[in-house]
Amino acid sequence: MEQNRNSGKSPEEHLEKDQRFHPEVEIFDTTLRDGAQGEGITFSVQDKIAVAQALDELGVRWIEAGNPGSNPKDMEFFRIAGELKLENATLCAFGATRKKGTTPGEDPMVKSLLDAGTDAVVLFGKSWDLHVTEVLRVSLEENLAMIAETVAFFKEENKTVIYDAEHFFDGWLANPEYALSTIKAALEAGADRIVLCDTNGGCFPDTIRAGIAAVIQQSESMKVPAVKAGGGSVTASSMIGIHAHNDADMASANTITAVQAGCRHVQGTLVGFGERSGNTALAAVIPSIELKLGLRCLPEGKLERISEITRRVAEIANVAVPDDMPYVGSRAFAHKAGMHADGILKISRSFEHIDPAKVGNDRRFLMSEVGGRSAIAERAKKIDPSITKDHPVTAALASRLKALEAEGWQFEGADASFELLVRRELGKYKPLFKIEGYRVVSEHPSSDALTCSHAWAKVWVDGQAEIAAAEGDGPVNALDGALRRALNHFYPELKQVRLSDFKVRVIDGKDATAAKVRVLIESTDGMSNWSTVGVSADIIEASRAALVDSIEYKLIGDIERRFKAYL
Amino acid sequence: MEQNRNSGKSPEEHLEKDQRFHPEVEIFDTTLRDGAQGEGITFSVQDKIAVAQALDELGVRWIEAGNPGSNPKDMEFFRIAGELKLENATLCAFGATRKKGTTPGEDPMVKSLLDAGTDAVVLFGKSWDLHVTEVLRVSLEENLAMIAETVAFFKEENKTVIYDAEHFFDGWLANPEYALSTIKAALEAGADRIVLCDTNGGCFPDTIRAGIAAVIQQSESMKVPAVKAGGGSVTASSMIGIHAHNDADMASANTITAVQAGCRHVQGTLVGFGERSGNTALAAVIPSIELKLGLRCLPEGKLERISEITRRVAEIANVAVPDDMPYVGSRAFAHKAGMHADGILKISRSFEHIDPAKVGNDRRFLMSEVGGRSAIAERAKKIDPSITKDHPVTAALASRLKALEAEGWQFEGADASFELLVRRELGKYKPLFKIEGYRVVSEHPSSDALTCSHAWAKVWVDGQAEIAAAEGDGPVNALDGALRRALNHFYPELKQVRLSDFKVRVIDGKDATAAKVRVLIESTDGMSNWSTVGVSADIIEASRAALVDSIEYKLIGDIERRFKAYL
Repeated sequence: MEQNRNSGKSPEEHLEKDQRFHPEVEIFDTTLRDGAQGEGITFSVQDKIAVAQALDELGVRWIEAGNPGSNPKDMEFFRIAGELKLENATLCAFGATRKKGTTPGEDPMVKSLLDAGTDAVVLFGKSWDLHVTEVLRVSLEENLAMIAETVAFFKEENKTVIYDAEHFFDGWLANPEYALSTIKAALEAGADRIVLCDTNGGCFPDTIRAGIAAVIQQSESMKVPAVKAGGGSVTASSMIGIHAHNDADMASANTITAVQAGCRHVQGTLVGFGERSGNTALAAVIPSIELKLGLRCLPEGKLERISEITRRVAEIANVAVPDDMPYVGSRAFAHKAGMHADGILKISRSFEHIDPAKVGNDRRFLMSEVGGRSAIAERAKKIDPSITKDHPVTAALASRLKALEAEGWQFEGADASFELLVRRELGKYKPLFKIEGYRVVSEHPSSDALTCSHAWAKVWVDGQAEIAAAEGDGPVNALDGALRRALNHFYPELKQVRLSDFKVRVIDGKDATAAKVRVLIESTDGMSNWSTVGVSADIIEASRAALVDSIEYKLIGDIERRFKAYL
Repeated sequence: MEQNRNSGKSPEEHLEKDQRFHPEVEIFDTTLRDGAQGEGITFSVQDKIAVAQALDELGVRWIEAGNPGSNPKDMEFFRIAGELKLENATLCAFGATRKKGTTPGEDPMVKSLLDAGTDAVVLFGKSWDLHVTEVLRVSLEENLAMIAETVAFFKEENKTVIYDAEHFFDGWLANPEYALSTIKAALEAGADRIVLCDTNGGCFPDTIRAGIAAVIQQSESMKVPAVKAGGGSVTASSMIGIHAHNDADMASANTITAVQAGCRHVQGTLVGFGERSGNTALAAVIPSIELKLGLRCLPEGKLERISEITRRVAEIANVAVPDDMPYVGSRAFAHKAGMHADGILKISRSFEHIDPAKVGNDRRFLMSEVGGRSAIAERAKKIDPSITKDHPVTAALASRLKALEAEGWQFEGADASFELLVRRELGKYKPLFKIEGYRVVSEHPSSDALTCSHAWAKVWVDGQAEIAAAEGDGPVNALDGALRRALNHFYPELKQVRLSDFKVRVIDGKDATAAKVRVLIESTDGMSNWSTVGVSADIIEASRAALVDSIEYKLIGDIERRFKAYL
């Protein structure tokens, strides 16, 4: 038997976990597999680890992390995934039923799925006769054998088997008897979950409801043995899951309809990434299931973090959460019409379907600073606890923020830069160094293939100057090196600091290479992390601004910690 | 009686129009009213005219063009709207029922609604007792009188009255009897349409279905007189409309459910603009109604234009149609997984819920590591029609692509770079120029605040060298300038080329400023657009690679066009 090296937990630990939280509807996230099939979405191995950690922090039950048979990067991920310490989620690898004319044990794709070493595997098989005969080009009987044998193979290997019935609903419409026989084959072979997929995303809720009813009816007549799900025994319907796509804009509705029809396993991708118009966006359905259907999906206290974690996963993929995304988008509770704002201030549910705090989002009133100021005051309190919504500094900050945002600055992902802004407005700030000048030269060909940029910088601290030079494989890298070398002379604690992330966004692409860029930098000193922002038409200047904020934030934090008693 | 100056047509002309096209489900677009309540959406009067013309061209039945009582710009629009020659649509103005303690004739908002001079008015009234008592702060009886009197007032003025029952579904859940009595009041006063609104956007399809059934039941028991709608007599249910919002991601599903329940009037905004998470996106439901429910909404031949007109309306509002928007987005029929591409090429409906041509959209195969040989062969055929999935070049390209993607390249958004890659693999490529070297200097402070970078480049073409220099507000901008100047000397046609978009992505942020960056460039020569990609640890080198591809693609295209006969 293959060792389940990715479980990272003994059976006792698993039991403990099961005792901690039993979801009423289990959430299965496939951002790292189906999500990676979305246009423009590519994850490095490091990105995959960061996404898995974020999803686990949110408390999803299953994470489908890749298709080890299809590409080497996924295989590499599973190789190192054993070191991931996941609290809530179980990792799954994804693959197809065996090919025609072979056995599961001999099929190289099945083998690589086994090699991923996960506790659970997701197997997809064909339910639509059209796909069996026209795409796979095998007989209807052979397809049933492919399903049954592959499920049985993994059950013998002691895996949890989640069976994805690809194109189930289209198949059920075309040939209900055959589609149901594929489900029966998977169940009889021991599948732990049967996930009904609307792969092409074109079905309406009425089809979903009817298709699920047919599967439940068949399962009940089969007397499916009670299986363990979250430690408890389950009914036929709680083994059934839904996997929807959004091609007819029905993914959320089809998912909710499926849960209403008895499904207790919901697949999707947190932000909605996926082929074509995407998969079910879990961030848009989890709140519906918890708050409107009253069924728990996530551990206590996690729903309030869904806006933040959705933004984090989107950030890792380097895309923005759509502003109008239900529940978690920046506009989900943004009120523009005067009548709406007026209604809200009288009684909030007059124009809000839920309380935004329940999903960790904020209400905003557009074209009025009422909404903005409370949020600003809330954050400025960190520097000076006496600041309130009506404090003059709050108003000054609000208008400063508005002006900066009009120039392309954005402080949502740059807490440290925002804190420095507050300090400056409060007069609690004095520059800790000054850059007299810098110069960066990039040339090709260069004498050294790896370091093609050279930078020079001169800084002043307390009347003393220091000059330093550095080389790097790009102009920003070289400048960063030169600045740090010069400043290390005065502030040796900066040696602990390193940049942990660096992102560039072009703000208005229409002017092409002369457009403004926004640089976001994340820094760490091993103890804490902070993020800063810089904006300029020149990427080097934008980086310089974000680097300076990062260094100042670190130095001010150290001063506070070391000298608080004297201040 | 107020003259309906905005009709622009005599009754005979109206009759003619009615003889031209009777929609089975009439489409009501409120982009110019509810859509303008979306964050970031503002229309000038000229914009409003352009949007109305686009919507009329698409063939919607009604256009709600503004709230004349709420802002002067809308009033101005209605003043000049009489000159609009609309072929299919009737303009409506929007306003509330009269205020408490007055009569419709004395209410200034009612007056301004009348002054708009449209054939049809949309009146909204309260259905939810909470809103009546807590927001309007009037008695339940007074609200019924406000509805009845205002509807009757506009009927006496010979207007078509579309009654929007605001918050109908929330009201019906809270107090079904009262909610239904507000509908009864509007119907008895002569309303031509009753539009049931999910104003807060939080309902699920089951509530929509049940609420509509209750309204239809009441209407039938009232024996509503047959009214003219598109010239024919109508049933109770064909007077009923749906107006949904997307706060729970249910707008499309609730709209489709309403049509399945008998509604024959559908409100929304073409692109989905609106308060918070937006209104029903008509571009996402019209294809569903026509292609899947088999009910005609638009005149013959118009559905094929919906992608184009949706993009046009979005352009006027200065926002982009979301790439993943169902039916009309650029990714709606974009296939990435190899298995999907393979299936599509065998039989298109295997992975497409509808034929993209029916909505004027295109199928695309994305080039990526998860994509397969079929998709690669399909695209390579453009260069050499003899290439098949099993051609050795296809295998070579697949492995080259995989290797490049592992290094961070991505060709999904860079068709032109992919084509050059194919040419190189086929031996149909010879460099058209060579860059001997370049040097970019960036410095701060600089003598000129705007141009802080200077570049120098030397190129060779056919044994001849050319050196050029340029300055720019960033290093990439400066290098771009220097390269183009040098090459223009040999290829004057490059003067027509400009960069229309420039995107930078850090591929693996974990190495911070030394991480790799991917630069995507979009270029145009006024006739066509193409996109290219470059990857390097150095942003200047990555940009250089994308710029070189862009220039070569343009030059090869020109050579092919001009010299095809000789080749």
